[in-house]
Amino acid sequence: KFRKLFLSLHGYEQSQLFENFSLAQRKIIYSYLTPEELANVFDDTEEDPVEAGKYLDEMPPAYVARLLREMYMDNVVDILADMRPLKRRKYLNLMQTGEAAQVRNLIHYEDESAGSLMTTEFIAVKEDLSVGSAMHQVKREAQEAELITYIYVIDEAGVLVGVLSVRDLITHPDDEAIKDIMITRVLAVDVNEDQEAIAEQVRDYNFVAIPVVDEAEKIVGIITVDDIIDVIDEESAEDYSHLAGVDTQTISHNPFQTAFKRLPWLITLLFLGMLTATLINHFDTLLSQMSVLAVFISLITGTAGNAGTQSLAVAVRRLAMNSHLKITRLLLNEVATGIIIGVVTGVCVWLMVGFWKQDLVLGGIVGAAMASAIFVANLAGSIIPIGMEKLGVDPAVASGPFISTLSDLTSVLIYFNIAQYFLQMYGH
Amino acid sequence: KFRKLFLSLHGYEQSQLFENFSLAQRKIIYSYLTPEELANVFDDTEEDPVEAGKYLDEMPPAYVARLLREMYMDNVVDILADMRPLKRRKYLNLMQTGEAAQVRNLIHYEDESAGSLMTTEFIAVKEDLSVGSAMHQVKREAQEAELITYIYVIDEAGVLVGVLSVRDLITHPDDEAIKDIMITRVLAVDVNEDQEAIAEQVRDYNFVAIPVVDEAEKIVGIITVDDIIDVIDEESAEDYSHLAGVDTQTISHNPFQTAFKRLPWLITLLFLGMLTATLINHFDTLLSQMSVLAVFISLITGTAGNAGTQSLAVAVRRLAMNSHLKITRLLLNEVATGIIIGVVTGVCVWLMVGFWKQDLVLGGIVGAAMASAIFVANLAGSIIPIGMEKLGVDPAVASGPFISTLSDLTSVLIYFNIAQYFLQMYGH
Ligand SMILES: [Mg+2]
Ligand SMILES: [Mg+2]
Ligand SMILES: [Mg+2]
Ligand SMILES: [Mg+2]
Ligand SMILES: [Mg+2]
Ligand SMILES: [Mg+2]
Ligand SMILES: [Mg+2]
Ligand SMILES: [Mg+2]
Ligand SMILES: [Mg+2]
Ligand SMILES: [Mg+2]
Ligand SMILES: [Mg+2]
Ligand SMILES: [Mg+2]
Ligand SMILES: [Mg+2]
Repeated sequence: KFRKLFLSLHGYEQSQLFENFSLAQRKIIYSYLTPEELANVFDDTEEDPVEAGKYLDEMPPAYVARLLREMYMDNVVDILADMRPLKRRKYLNLMQTGEAAQVRNLIHYEDESAGSLMTTEFIAVKEDLSVGSAMHQVKREAQEAELITYIYVIDEAGVLVGVLSVRDLITHPDDEAIKDIMITRVLAVDVNEDQEAIAEQVRDYNFVAIPVVDEAEKIVGIITVDDIIDVIDEESAEDYSHLAGVDTQTISHNPFQTAFKRLPWLITLLFLGMLTATLINHFDTLLSQMSVLAVFISLITGTAGNAGTQSLAVAVRRLAMNSHLKITRLLLNEVATGIIIGVVTGVCVWLMVGFWKQDLVLGGIVGAAMASAIFVANLAGSIIPIGMEKLGVDPAVASGPFISTLSDLTSVLIYFNIAQYFLQMYGH
Repeated sequence: KFRKLFLSLHGYEQSQLFENFSLAQRKIIYSYLTPEELANVFDDTEEDPVEAGKYLDEMPPAYVARLLREMYMDNVVDILADMRPLKRRKYLNLMQTGEAAQVRNLIHYEDESAGSLMTTEFIAVKEDLSVGSAMHQVKREAQEAELITYIYVIDEAGVLVGVLSVRDLITHPDDEAIKDIMITRVLAVDVNEDQEAIAEQVRDYNFVAIPVVDEAEKIVGIITVDDIIDVIDEESAEDYSHLAGVDTQTISHNPFQTAFKRLPWLITLLFLGMLTATLINHFDTLLSQMSVLAVFISLITGTAGNAGTQSLAVAVRRLAMNSHLKITRLLLNEVATGIIIGVVTGVCVWLMVGFWKQDLVLGGIVGAAMASAIFVANLAGSIIPIGMEKLGVDPAVASGPFISTLSDLTSVLIYFNIAQYFLQMYGH
C-alpha cells in the first residue's frame, strides 16, 4: 500500500520524501522499490551528488548495478564524479562494460563544459531510413531515451547531418525519406563549450534539448533543458554572490566555516580601507583647523559608494547580455549620467548643509566634493567591469563592496583636496 | 534566393536579422515571406512586444490577420496587450471571432500570472478514447500545437483528469484505452498563480510544460519551458537589480532617463546619510579634542557596510530558496558568524592601528568599534530581510546600498560612543 502511494507521486516528490527518510526507512525503500523505480527518484533529485553517492553504499551490489543502469547517464556521471577513485572503481565494476566505458569517458570532461552536462540517452537515426522505419526505431528506443522531442539524423560515420521532431515523424507518411523532411542546419555545441554560452543558446532558440558533437562533428550526447535551467540558476546565483562579495550558494551550518568564507574579501578590503585612513591622516592639519569636515566624510563616501554600486551593476548586466555592446557608447552614457546625478545630488547637499550650518561655503565644499566623488565612483563602476572584460576576466566578479571601498578612497581624496582649495581661496 | 536562405535559418536567427532591417527591407520581407513564415520569426523574437506591435502597422491588413492567426496565442497576447485600446481593437477585428475572443480573455490576466504566460495551443484528448484514436487526433492537431510532448486528458466537462506523454502514445498498442495508461496525478497551476512559484515547480519537476486550470479545474492553457526560462531570467535580474539598488533591466540611451532612474534611491539614502552626519556633528567636542578619530570613520563604516552587504545577500538567497527555513537557526548562525568576523577583523585593526599610531589605546578604540559595528551590520543584514518576509514584503527588495548606508549610521554611533567611553576611562 505504501509502495503504491509512493509510486503515484512524481519523481521529484519521491526524492523529497526519500531525502527525509532515516537509514531504516531507506532500507525498507530498497526492498519495496525495484531499482528501475528508484532510478526515477534519483534522476529527479535535487540533492547534491555527494549525498546521493552515500545512499549507494547502503544498497546490495546487484541492486546498485541495476539502479545505475536505469538512471540517465548524466546523473550517474554526476554521482560517480564526486566519489573517491577507489569507491568509484567499485561501482564502475558493477556496471556493464559498455556503460562503464561511457561513464569513464564522460567523467573526464571539465566541470561546466558541455561534456559534463550531456546525457547519452538520445535517439539518432540513419539518414537513409524512411519515416516508417525511423518511427519503428523510435518506438524501440523511446523508453530508454531521456527525451524524444528531437530525433537526430546521422550519416554512416555518426556525423550529425540533420534533425527532426517527433512531430514531423508522426505527421509525415511512412514511406517518405528522412532525408527529405529533416532540417539540415542543425545547431550543435562542441563538447568543450562552456555551459553559460550553451544556456544562452537554448534560451534564445527556445530549444528543449541541444545536441553535443565532438571535433569530428559526431554526435556524442544531448543536453536537456532541465539541466540548462539548473545552469541558469547556478550562473545567476554566482553573479548575485559576486555583487555582494560573498558565496551565497554553499550553505554551511557551522559559523566558523561561514565566517572564514566571508573574511578573505573583508580583510582584503580592510587594507584598501587602511589606505583611505592614511590618506585622511595626511590631512590632519586641515582636520584640526576645521574639524567640521569630519562630519561629512561618511555622507560623501557613502553616497558615492551607492552610485558606484549602481553603475557597476548596470555595466555588468549590460556586458553580460549584449556581446556586441558599444563600449564607448556605454561609457559616454555613464559620463553624462554621472554628471547629472552628481550635479543634482551636489546641489541638494550644498543647500542642505548650507542651511544647516548657516555656511554656504562649507555647503559648497561638501556639495562640490559630493558631485565630483559621485562622478568618479559612477565612472569607476563602469570602467572596472569593462576593463575586466577587455582583460578576459568575467566582469561579474567585480563586487559592490569592492567598488564602494574603492570609492571611499577616491571620495576622501577629492573631499579633502577640494576643502583645502576652498580654504586657501576663502581663508575660512 | 534570399527567401530560401532566410528560411533556412532558425526562427531566432531570422528575428535577429529582421530587427536590424530598415523599413524598406522589412517591406520586402512582407512581400517575400508568407504570413505563416513570418509568424515563425515573430514567435521566436526576443524583441519587446511594443516594437513587434509597431511592425504590424507596416503590413497589409489581410497579411496581419493571417500572421496573428499563425502565431502562438501567448505571443499574440503579449503584443496586443501593450497596444493602446483603439489600435488593439483594430487588430482584434482582423482576427477570427473565436481567436479574438480568446485574446480578449487572455489579455485580462494580471501581469506575472499563469494566465498571462500561458498559450492555448495544447492538445487535450477525451478520456474515453483509445490510444489509436488519440494518436489520430494528435496527428491532426500536431502542427497547430506549440508542444506535443504532453497530451492532456479531459473529461466531458473539460476538467483535467490525466496526462500522458507522446512517448506513451507511441509505445502503447492502438487498442489500449487512454484511461489505462494516463497518469491521474497531474500537477497543474491555477490561472492566477504567480510566475515565480510556477517557475520553481517547473524547475524542480523538470517539466517541459505545465498545464493551467481555472477554478473549475478545467484546463485553459499550458505554459511552456521556454517562457519559464524567460521568467527565471527576469526574476533573477530583478533580484540582482534590487541588491544593487538600481533597475538594470530597462536600458535607456538617454542619460537623463538613466539618471532619474537612479536618483530616487540615492536621494533617499542621502537623507539617511545626513542623519549620520548630524550624529557625528553631535560629537564635535570629542572630535576637536581628538581629531585623529576622523581618520578611521570611513574604515569602520566601509568595512561594516561590506559585512552587512554579505549577510544581507546570504539571508535573501536563503529565504528565497528555502520556504521552510528555520529563522531562529539562521539568526543564531549569523550572530555567531558576526562575532567571529567582528573579533578577527577587530583584532587585525587593533594591531594595525596600534603599531601605526604607536598607541594601543587608540588601536583598541578603533578595533572595538570595528568589531561591534561589524557585528551589528551583520545582524542587521539578516534581520531586515527576515522582517520583510514576516511583513509579507519580498525580502529581495532590500538593497546593498541601503544596508551599507544604514550601517554607516550604526557604525558611527558605536564608534564615537566607544571613543568617548575609552577617553573617560583612560583620559587620553
Ligand atoms: Mg542508462
Ligand atoms: Mg545533471
Ligand atoms: Mg527564449
Ligand atoms: Mg538530465
Ligand atoms: Mg556569469
Ligand atoms: Mg560560471
Ligand atoms: Mg560605504
Ligand atoms: Mg494561433
Ligand atoms: Mg511569451
Ligand atoms: Mg530541475
Ligand atoms: Mg511561448
Ligand atoms: Mg523574486
Ligand atoms: Mg517578481
